[in-house]
Amino acid sequence: MKRDLISIDQLSCEEINKIHELALLYFEKQEPNKKLAEKLLVNFFFENSTRTRMSFEIAARRSGCNVVNLDISLSSLKKGESIIDTAKTINAMRPDFVAIRHNSSGIVSLLKNYIEASLINAGDGTNEHPSQALLDSFVIKQHKGDLSQLKIAICGDVLHSRVARSNIKLLRKFGAEVRVITPSTLMPIDFKQWLQEKFSIRVFDNLADGIEGVDVVMMLRIQQERMLGCYIPSLGEYAKLYGLTHDKLKLAGRGALVLHPGPINREVEISSELADDKEISLILEQVEAGVALRRALLEFL
Amino acid sequence: MKRDLISIDQLSCEEINKIHELALLYFEKQEPNKKLAEKLLVNFFFENSTRTRMSFEIAARRSGCNVVNLDISLSSLKKGESIIDTAKTINAMRPDFVAIRHNSSGIVSLLKNYIEASLINAGDGTNEHPSQALLDSFVIKQHKGDLSQLKIAICGDVLHSRVARSNIKLLRKFGAEVRVITPSTLMPIDFKQWLQEKFSIRVFDNLADGIEGVDVVMMLRIQQERMLGCYIPSLGEYAKLYGLTHDKLKLAGRGALVLHPGPINREVEISSELADDKEISLILEQVEAGVALRRALLEFL
Amino acid sequence: MKRDLISIDQLSCEEINKIHELALLYFEKQEPNKKLAEKLLVNFFFENSTRTRMSFEIAARRSGCNVVNLDISLSSLKKGESIIDTAKTINAMRPDFVAIRHNSSGIVSLLKNYIEASLINAGDGTNEHPSQALLDSFVIKQHKGDLSQLKIAICGDVLHSRVARSNIKLLRKFGAEVRVITPSTLMPIDFKQWLQEKFSIRVFDNLADGIEGVDVVMMLRIQQERMLGCYIPSLGEYAKLYGLTHDKLKLAGRGALVLHPGPINREVEISSELADDKEISLILEQVEAGVALRRALLEFL
Repeated sequence: MKRDLISIDQLSCEEINKIHELALLYFEKQEPNKKLAEKLLVNFFFENSTRTRMSFEIAARRSGCNVVNLDISLSSLKKGESIIDTAKTINAMRPDFVAIRHNSSGIVSLLKNYIEASLINAGDGTNEHPSQALLDSFVIKQHKGDLSQLKIAICGDVLHSRVARSNIKLLRKFGAEVRVITPSTLMPIDFKQWLQEKFSIRVFDNLADGIEGVDVVMMLRIQQERMLGCYIPSLGEYAKLYGLTHDKLKLAGRGALVLHPGPINREVEISSELADDKEISLILEQVEAGVALRRALLEFL
Repeated sequence: MKRDLISIDQLSCEEINKIHELALLYFEKQEPNKKLAEKLLVNFFFENSTRTRMSFEIAARRSGCNVVNLDISLSSLKKGESIIDTAKTINAMRPDFVAIRHNSSGIVSLLKNYIEASLINAGDGTNEHPSQALLDSFVIKQHKGDLSQLKIAICGDVLHSRVARSNIKLLRKFGAEVRVITPSTLMPIDFKQWLQEKFSIRVFDNLADGIEGVDVVMMLRIQQERMLGCYIPSLGEYAKLYGLTHDKLKLAGRGALVLHPGPINREVEISSELADDKEISLILEQVEAGVALRRALLEFL
Repeated sequence: MKRDLISIDQLSCEEINKIHELALLYFEKQEPNKKLAEKLLVNFFFENSTRTRMSFEIAARRSGCNVVNLDISLSSLKKGESIIDTAKTINAMRPDFVAIRHNSSGIVSLLKNYIEASLINAGDGTNEHPSQALLDSFVIKQHKGDLSQLKIAICGDVLHSRVARSNIKLLRKFGAEVRVITPSTLMPIDFKQWLQEKFSIRVFDNLADGIEGVDVVMMLRIQQERMLGCYIPSLGEYAKLYGLTHDKLKLAGRGALVLHPGPINREVEISSELADDKEISLILEQVEAGVALRRALLEFL
C-alpha cells in the first residue's frame, strides 16, 4: 500500500510517534540494513540543496535502497518539456519513492496525480517541508520530552517559511504552545488571523516578549537575496532586533535550546557564538537526526 | 567476449528477438537480480537527457551493476582535454559498459577504437540511437505482433532524427513496410533516394496519404530551437499539416497505435488529447519498456 | 582508529609500502569485494575533475563502499554558507571518508578540525595531492623497482604543482634522486632554496641538462589559462624548450619512462607521439593504477 508525505496533515500523532521510534533506533545505531534492498528512490530536485538531497540519499543507501538523482539543470525541462510530462516519465520507470523539491508551493500535490510511487515533499515553495518538521520535533523530544508540555517560539520570516508551516502544524497537533516572532512587515493581517484562529498561536513582533519562558527557540533562515530592501530594511537592523544571541536567550526559559534548519547566516539571525555553543545549539544534531529520520520515514512509507 | 551496440546494423534479427525475449521477462516482472553484480557502467553523456540517462542507470542498477555518471560540464574537457584522451582515461579505469551520448554523428564509432568496454551508442548526433529502436520495436511487437506483417509510418523531421534512422534499419530488417512522412523542405533529394533505394521506403509529404492503412504511427519530436524559420515556417503551420490528432488518425488503419520517443511538444507534433489517450498512445509504455529493454541489452552484451 | 591523508608527511615508508602491496593485488586482479560494505565516501569537490573523482568513486564502489558526490555548484554554498559550516553539515551525516578537492592550499588541514571521518586530500590548491604521488610511485616501482636507486626528473611548473610537491616529498622519503626542471621565471629564489636545502634537489632550467641519465621523467601539465603571458611568453616557446619528445628523451637514461598526471596538453608539454608510445609513456597505466591505489588507500585508512 502506497503512502505519500506531502503535508504534515497526512500524519496522525500515533504515526509520527511511530516514525520517531524507528528514527531513534537509527539515530543510536546507524548500521546499514537491507530493508529497502529492492527499492529505488528518485531525488527530483529543482532547487539547490546540500543537506536535504544528501540526507535523503544517505538515508536511502543506509537501508540498501538505490538512489537516482535527477539534476534538473541537465534534464529535458530545458527542451521545453512540462514538469507533468517529466513526472509521468519518471513514473513510467517505476521508482518506489520520489522526493521532490521545487520552488512552487503546492506543486507536489499536483504531481501526486501523475506519480504512483510514494511521493515525499522535500520542500515546495513556501508551503511545506514535512520531513524537516518530523526531524525537528524528533530532536526536541530527545532533549525536552513530551511535546504537549512545551513552549516553542518560531522566530524569523515565518510567512515565507515552509519549515515553519510544517512545524506549526506538527507541534500544534501534539498540543505544544507555539509562538511566532516576526517583524510586522512580515505578518500580513490574514496570515496573522490564520495563525491565531486555526492554530491558537500568539504572534509577537518583539523578540524579548516572544521568547519569555520558552523551552525551545526555532530560528529561521533569512533569505537575504529575496528579503533585503523588500521586507526588511537592512541585515544589521534585522540582526539587532531579531538575531538571537546568548544575551537575548537569557530571557527564555531556563535551559532553553535553539534549532535552525540551516544553512545559517552567521551574525544575522543567530550569533556565531550561540550557533557553535554545543550546550544550547542543536543545529548539527538536526542534520545528524535528519538522516536517521528520513531512513525511518522511507521505511514507514 | 565484448560486444558493442553502435548501430542497428550490428544486430541480426535473431539477436534482436533474443533481446526482446529477455526484455519481456523484465517488463513483466521487474525484480532486481545480481547478474551484473561485479560490473560497472559509465554514463558518458555530452547532451542533456532525462529519460535515456535515467533509463540506463535504473536498468543497470536493477541488475546489480554499478553506475558512474560522467557529467561533462564538470569534467576535464573544460580544461581542454580532447574527447579521445577522456575516452582513454575512462577506459583505463576498466569499466564494463560505456553508454555515450554526443551531438556529433559518428563519434561513438570513433571512440570504439579507444574503449575496450562494451560501448553503447545512446544517441550520436543525427546518426543512430539503437536502444531506442530496440525498445520501440519491442513495444510494437507487444501490441501488434509479427513486425514483418506491419505497416508503419514515421512522421516528422526524419532527416535529423537518429531515432528514425535506427528504427528504419530495424523495421526493414524484419520486413515491415515503412513509410516516411515529412515536409519536402526536410527531404533533400539524396536522402529521399537513399530511403527509397536502400530501404524501399515510400516518402510522403502529406500526412493523410502517408498514414492511410498503417498499423502504427511513429511521431518524431520537432526540435523547435533548431528548426524554426530554418526548415519550417511556423509551429502553427507545422502542427496543422503534420501534427497528429484523433481526427487525422482516423485515416490510418483500424486500431492504429501511436509512438513518440519523447519529450513531446504538446499541440505541435501531437495533440495533448491524443498523447494522453491510453488506448492509442504508447508513449509512457515506451518509457517503461525502455528500462526493461536496456536491462536486457546490458545483459546481452 | 581514524586516519587522514592530507600530506605525504603523514605516511612512513613502511606504510607507503603497505599501501603499494595492497594496490598491487587490486591492480592485478580487480575483483570487487565487500571490505567497505557498510561505509560511506563523500566526494566533496570544489574543482572540476574527471579522473580524480571517478577514480575515487570507482575505487570505493569496487570495495562495496557507498559514494555520495557533493556537487558544489548545486549546493548551499551558493546560498552563502561558509565552507566550514558545509563541512560540519557533512560531518553530521556521519560519512566514513571524505575526499576533498579545493583550489585553496591548506584548506583540507583547516577542515580536518570539523570532520571526524577519514579525510583525504584529493588536491588542495598548489599544496599537495598525496594519492597522486602514491600512485605515481606505485607505477614507477612496478617498472623500475627500488625507488632509492632511481633518478627522477620532474619537469614543468613545479612551483604551482600540488602533484610535484607530493611526489617530491614521497620520492625523497625513499631516497630517490630528484631533479626539478623549470623555467627560471617559475623558480623564485626562496622556492629554489627550499628545494635544495630541505630536499637536496638539483634545479635545472635546461631540459637537456636536467634529464641526463634519469630513469623517469615526470611531466607536469601547463595550466594554460593561468600561465600564459604571466609566467611563460608563449606556448610555442614553452613547447620548444620544455616540451618532451622522443628526440629529447634520448638524453635521458636508457629505457627512461615518462609519467604525466593528466589531462595532457598535446604538443605543449609532451608530443602526441611520445604520449601515445606505449613502450615509454605510462600515462594510462597511471589512471588504471589510480583506481587500485585509491582502493588500497581507502582500506588502509
